[in-house]
Amino acid sequence: MADQAFVTLATNDSYARGALVLGKSLRNHHTSKTLVVLIGPQLSEPCQSALRRIYDDVILVNVMDSGDTAHLALMKRPDLGVTLTKLHCWTLTQYSKCVFMDADTLVLSNIDELFDREELSAAPDPGWPDCFNSGVFVFRPSVETYGKLLKFCTEKGSFDGGDQGVLNGFFSDWATADISKHLPFIYNLSSIAIYTYLPAFKQFGDNAKVVHFLGETKPWTYTFDPQTKQLCGGMQEAPTQPAFLLDWWTLYASAVVPMLQEQYGDKPFVSG
Amino acid sequence: MADQAFVTLATNDSYARGALVLGKSLRNHHTSKTLVVLIGPQLSEPCQSALRRIYDDVILVNVMDSGDTAHLALMKRPDLGVTLTKLHCWTLTQYSKCVFMDADTLVLSNIDELFDREELSAAPDPGWPDCFNSGVFVFRPSVETYGKLLKFCTEKGSFDGGDQGVLNGFFSDWATADISKHLPFIYNLSSIAIYTYLPAFKQFGDNAKVVHFLGETKPWTYTFDPQTKQLCGGMQEAPTQPAFLLDWWTLYASAVVPMLQEQYGDKPFVSG
Ligand SMILES: O=c1ccn([C@@H]2O[C@H](COP(=O)(O)OP(=O)(O)O)[C@@H](O)[C@H]2O)c(=O)[nH]1
Ligand SMILES: O=c1ccn([C@@H]2O[C@H](COP(=O)(O)OP(=O)(O)O)[C@@H](O)[C@H]2O)c(=O)[nH]1
Ligand SMILES: [Mn+2]
Ligand SMILES: [Mn+2]
Repeated sequence: MADQAFVTLATNDSYARGALVLGKSLRNHHTSKTLVVLIGPQLSEPCQSALRRIYDDVILVNVMDSGDTAHLALMKRPDLGVTLTKLHCWTLTQYSKCVFMDADTLVLSNIDELFDREELSAAPDPGWPDCFNSGVFVFRPSVETYGKLLKFCTEKGSFDGGDQGVLNGFFSDWATADISKHLPFIYNLSSIAIYTYLPAFKQFGDNAKVVHFLGETKPWTYTFDPQTKQLCGGMQEAPTQPAFLLDWWTLYASAVVPMLQEQYGDKPFVSG
Repeated sequence: MADQAFVTLATNDSYARGALVLGKSLRNHHTSKTLVVLIGPQLSEPCQSALRRIYDDVILVNVMDSGDTAHLALMKRPDLGVTLTKLHCWTLTQYSKCVFMDADTLVLSNIDELFDREELSAAPDPGWPDCFNSGVFVFRPSVETYGKLLKFCTEKGSFDGGDQGVLNGFFSDWATADISKHLPFIYNLSSIAIYTYLPAFKQFGDNAKVVHFLGETKPWTYTFDPQTKQLCGGMQEAPTQPAFLLDWWTLYASAVVPMLQEQYGDKPFVSG
């Protein structure tokens, strides 16, 4: 349906790499939905070009320039920069329903069935499971909701300093109100869960539909040897979920790197 | 109500120390429910005596001797010993509704409202939040359910080798069927959650009603200096949640140790 979209966000070239892989993974699994990426003004032109080849819609969000309540909110809470950019997804009223996905997620099968769910549907956060994880969520763009969210942001702030704190504060009955708004965990399988409860991962992990590389170390912070198909070590820690990381890198190396090389020519194609 | 009970389990003297603290914490918060502890045959007589002073009902469960399907199940799956003992709680048909609590839990306020919930109500497991944690759950004793559980045990086993795997396999629609069967996480707050998502703990942790010391290191594996009121280091790792651990030790040192000393006289009062 043309009025339904997957939406992601990349405010810099690093997250843009994630968005490129995510978009490609959605295409590979034949989504019938529109693909939208919100970008920040820092994104390099070659990255923007590559995004335009995968996404139907590349939308520049400049909270500083927006001249609306988002700008005012940012003046009051300068710490909430990226969070406010993410909330901008509620302004996409050309779509009736959307699924937001973090740029550090990877789709492993067709997930168009998520559009059967209502706002605000999301999967539980491992760690504090009465909160939802804001890496994957179903929402309905609405200027009214957007205004309320910004108001909430400025008045209450974010208990964790990011969008997850704001969204859980705002949609605060998620844990108790409606089971249909609990997406199965396999739609937002965080790497952390593999370790904390390995037997459950072995039991249910085969059905994973979306993997989420949350936390400090992102797939793009590792290096990858395309010859041996091996990860050559991350910056802060050892690879946590090598199989999924390899999936990410295989897609990145085969489909995204060639595209970026085309755009950048001889210039190095990593910034931000 | 006389036909509603809190139920715990201790198969050895170590877990009995936990059960004594748990029982005492329930009493201190003026529960109106009956307190039941299931014990294994290894429990020392002094520990049993102490349990009898706190619990209304101390029930010996000897799966080896039971001569019923539990014994048969144990023959087929000798690895499931303690699990089968825990499942025995479904045989307590003198009660119409019960709340099972692990012996490594501590109650921080009156939680009798849990009896408003139906079988099987439990809180999500941090780690794999589409599973419930089996450290605190509401159930209805029933010979029929007990038989089905044992059958499930022998035929399907436990995906994690313990009762949580069996119970999640058996009550497999918990994640998707009925939101009222999702206990708020503050009724089974695992130490692990404090670390994985500290801002959420700071936001919601003040309302904690039950803390669960799950994992390898139990409160009783630390030592405590009653003079300085300090924990003197655990066996495997540093104390994870000192405030709650201190609560546990304060209750243990003030209310349980004197009781055990009375029972044991001069003999050392720690075994198992
Ligand atoms: O500098 C940033 C930080 C975050 N994001 C976007 O915000 C999402 C949430 O941040 P992140 O995934 O790093 O948080 P985590 O999932 O690790 O908590 C990212 O996936 C991106 O879509 C971004 O574009 N630029
Ligand atoms: O040797 C044992 C192991 C476990 N238990 C009981 O089974 C519960 C579950 O085990 P545990 O709490 O150690 O598991 P965890 O919560 O750490 O996964 C305990 O709290 C006790 O009530 C017991 O009586 N004896
Ligand atoms: Mn993320
Ligand atoms: Mn436990």
